[in-house]
Amino acid sequence: MWLKNCWYVAAHAYDVTNTLLARRILNEPIIFWRTTEGTVSALKDRCAHRLVPLSAGRVAGDVVECGYHGMAFAGDGRCVAVPGQDGVPASARVRAYPVVERHGLIWVWMGDAGLADDTLVPNIFWMDQPGWAVSKGYHHVRADYRLVGDNLLDLSHESFLHTHTIGDDVVVNTPVKVDVADGMVVRAHRDMPGIEAPPFFALLLGSDEPIDRMQTAVFHPPSTHMTLVRIQPTGQPDRLLDGRAIHLLTPETATSTHYHWGFARSYHLDDTDLTEKVRLATTRTFDEDAVMLALQQEGVDEEPDGPFPRLALRVDAGPVQGRRLLGMLIDREQASGAVLRVADLP
Amino acid sequence: MWLKNCWYVAAHAYDVTNTLLARRILNEPIIFWRTTEGTVSALKDRCAHRLVPLSAGRVAGDVVECGYHGMAFAGDGRCVAVPGQDGVPASARVRAYPVVERHGLIWVWMGDAGLADDTLVPNIFWMDQPGWAVSKGYHHVRADYRLVGDNLLDLSHESFLHTHTIGDDVVVNTPVKVDVADGMVVRAHRDMPGIEAPPFFALLLGSDEPIDRMQTAVFHPPSTHMTLVRIQPTGQPDRLLDGRAIHLLTPETATSTHYHWGFARSYHLDDTDLTEKVRLATTRTFDEDAVMLALQQEGVDEEPDGPFPRLALRVDAGPVQGRRLLGMLIDREQASGAVLRVADLP
Amino acid sequence: MWLKNCWYVAAHAYDVTNTLLARRILNEPIIFWRTTEGTVSALKDRCAHRLVPLSAGRVAGDVVECGYHGMAFAGDGRCVAVPGQDGVPASARVRAYPVVERHGLIWVWMGDAGLADDTLVPNIFWMDQPGWAVSKGYHHVRADYRLVGDNLLDLSHESFLHTHTIGDDVVVNTPVKVDVADGMVVRAHRDMPGIEAPPFFALLLGSDEPIDRMQTAVFHPPSTHMTLVRIQPTGQPDRLLDGRAIHLLTPETATSTHYHWGFARSYHLDDTDLTEKVRLATTRTFDEDAVMLALQQEGVDEEPDGPFPRLALRVDAGPVQGRRLLGMLIDREQASGAVLRVADLP
Repeated sequence: MWLKNCWYVAAHAYDVTNTLLARRILNEPIIFWRTTEGTVSALKDRCAHRLVPLSAGRVAGDVVECGYHGMAFAGDGRCVAVPGQDGVPASARVRAYPVVERHGLIWVWMGDAGLADDTLVPNIFWMDQPGWAVSKGYHHVRADYRLVGDNLLDLSHESFLHTHTIGDDVVVNTPVKVDVADGMVVRAHRDMPGIEAPPFFALLLGSDEPIDRMQTAVFHPPSTHMTLVRIQPTGQPDRLLDGRAIHLLTPETATSTHYHWGFARSYHLDDTDLTEKVRLATTRTFDEDAVMLALQQEGVDEEPDGPFPRLALRVDAGPVQGRRLLGMLIDREQASGAVLRVADLP
Repeated sequence: MWLKNCWYVAAHAYDVTNTLLARRILNEPIIFWRTTEGTVSALKDRCAHRLVPLSAGRVAGDVVECGYHGMAFAGDGRCVAVPGQDGVPASARVRAYPVVERHGLIWVWMGDAGLADDTLVPNIFWMDQPGWAVSKGYHHVRADYRLVGDNLLDLSHESFLHTHTIGDDVVVNTPVKVDVADGMVVRAHRDMPGIEAPPFFALLLGSDEPIDRMQTAVFHPPSTHMTLVRIQPTGQPDRLLDGRAIHLLTPETATSTHYHWGFARSYHLDDTDLTEKVRLATTRTFDEDAVMLALQQEGVDEEPDGPFPRLALRVDAGPVQGRRLLGMLIDREQASGAVLRVADLP
Repeated sequence: MWLKNCWYVAAHAYDVTNTLLARRILNEPIIFWRTTEGTVSALKDRCAHRLVPLSAGRVAGDVVECGYHGMAFAGDGRCVAVPGQDGVPASARVRAYPVVERHGLIWVWMGDAGLADDTLVPNIFWMDQPGWAVSKGYHHVRADYRLVGDNLLDLSHESFLHTHTIGDDVVVNTPVKVDVADGMVVRAHRDMPGIEAPPFFALLLGSDEPIDRMQTAVFHPPSTHMTLVRIQPTGQPDRLLDGRAIHLLTPETATSTHYHWGFARSYHLDDTDLTEKVRLATTRTFDEDAVMLALQQEGVDEEPDGPFPRLALRVDAGPVQGRRLLGMLIDREQASGAVLRVADLP
């Protein structure tokens, strides 16, 4: 159910310091920390000796020291010291995971370390590049990451679930155009010209003028979603506001997801008050998603068999394409070990 | 373990309003609500699209609207609207359950809807008929409904568990007479003449005179229990007080039970203070049962095999007859699909 | 995984009174209480009738009365009364466990009652003999008792886990000498002359002079551990302070342990303030163990297969011998039913 040979977001860069951060990814317990030089290491969070979590220990210089008997492991997983004896058993090591820090995020490679290639990190430069102001956050979602992905490829749910921020009747009543670019990127687009601005957009615009709203959901498998959030006062393209919601879905377990996100905008860059208001509104919106997704997961847990969704409605065109593409890539990896090469985002 | 083609109590009538009530019955999640005309509908609490609970949505007029994508379902289970598209897929429906409102209770038919027959609702008119004042309540019990039923057919436990309200040594020391009327109704009777009144009966009588106590447990399978609670000052039949405790046991899961109850009396009808005092005393009494039954269930969970009860004591004459009858009816239904026709209560 | 024909500590003597104490041992629920003569009885905590816990009932004279229907059981497990009937069914009994009170502890025999022999109770006289002052306590540990035993046979962990009380770098850096006395008692010894006193030892000594520390871990299978805690101001054997930490590990379930303990000292016998300070310091120390052991159990639960410990380090000499001996004894009992005869502690 998971693509292995690819980069997953483990944390926001600011979450990883010189103390240990423990996080389960693809159901493997992992610790992350920064060495004295600032680079990030990742090891399996389980001592090679007695299986205690290394996260109950501490960082000592550039190594991790187990809290139980002091075995020390370097960032490459090798044991470098066993207190109480001179030598180190050859088999004393824990799994190390390739890590890259990029775009303000920590990425971890969960498959064959020999295939790790940092050119394969999705190019989501909006997260930390000059010219963009970003509101960031994290949600823990008690649902399969594929349900979270479906949610992002079918934004018609905004009309029912997010009426306090981004939703109105227009969304669900506007037909969505879905295409698959290069056989690799699913896009679902809606144009909504001349509408009353839902509250979140009035906030961005600083007024309640009618707007033209252009919404595009983009999915790069397995885990990178982006929502293009472009609005302008109706008929005034010179006043276009260009925003990008970046959604990074990392499976924690088969039924839970780490959801790191950022909302990047290319306007009002110095308005830190707006940055905070966007963060709060987005947090509220994704809180609503998290509740509904967890309820959905309970239904799936109780009735696991059968097609999903049970009925493919018109609004499911995006999710159906997304799941098809993802399933195909997982099948391909399991059959041939081929590594997914990700195209640039649009 | 459950009879299917019969009516189970889902709720007190006052619990079902124009908002959604979610309740699991025979391990199926169900929602209940009143239409604008006041009739009650019941649907499976799981959307036909993505399996989210419909109880996370809302009632809109006479239909239920899913909170995720707005699919609307009528009380008969048919989908009547899919926002974002014109047609409705033919297969878009959820299971509807026949419902009857009677005797101040909402009854749901869990088996073949084509066999639902409202003349089969147990005639427990005491719950809402003029001439009776009723104290009502609900307990959630973490035990198999058969354990709750055993508890009601062997009232000797009052002597140990309910000494603050209805129990004294007399109950367990008085032989119980058990018979099965019409091969269909189990009755267990005790006469206890000339006894000191336990606190609950002194409350009913408004004095602490000696009383004659006549106790009859009645069981109509699968789920209707009644306790005839008749007392009189010793030797004074002209001062007889006639009460009925009605116990309605609806399986929630294999190990939990919805326990709706009422205590109906034919005297002091306008004494609302007495109605409340009876409610409080009964709540306390059934709280004591709920604790012991949950502990019993834990024992059964840990040692599921073997006869039950492990030892059939003299006091088990009622429960043994009740379980025999219930088991026979379940076997019959599973073999032939025959519908149980309930006799009138005594 | 458990030796059955042996005595396990069920409780401190002061925990068992004339009311019911419920405790699960080797995954069997048991109640303990004192009769009017002061002797302790132990019965399975499950009524022979309906499987409710007898611990929900009460002691009445020298029998236990079930809280549900009043069945009364004597300390030998026989039912002596069934309220509501004259006779008692021949099969109405619950399992009784042999019990001995000795050394300030209540011991229970979990195997064949016919083999129970009170001369087999480990002779840990330090717990209640004149000439010794004892600080006592109890920890519930969410880990297999074998992990707790490993912890006591490899005290090098003090250097990492207990730096606030008994640990320093000296412990792990001092080689441990392990032997198996009489093929039946594992001992692991460290001499640490001329060291700075860790806080707990400065407390015992009442000064921060340098000390000679002599530490011996002793294991009598299956469940009795002792740590000889001997210190003296460096080079002054006439000022030797002799202490014994007694650790009594009783499996609750496969993954949890009752840990009764005492710290006995042969000096400053009347210093009740010291007794309390020792109790607090020991409680803190074992709290630290309990946290680490529970984390270790989680790792073992998730990766149950393979040798344990995964790597046998030099510090594991004690645990390896302890597990080997314990495994041999369990195999022997299961093969031949032979009863373990425990040698005296050193």
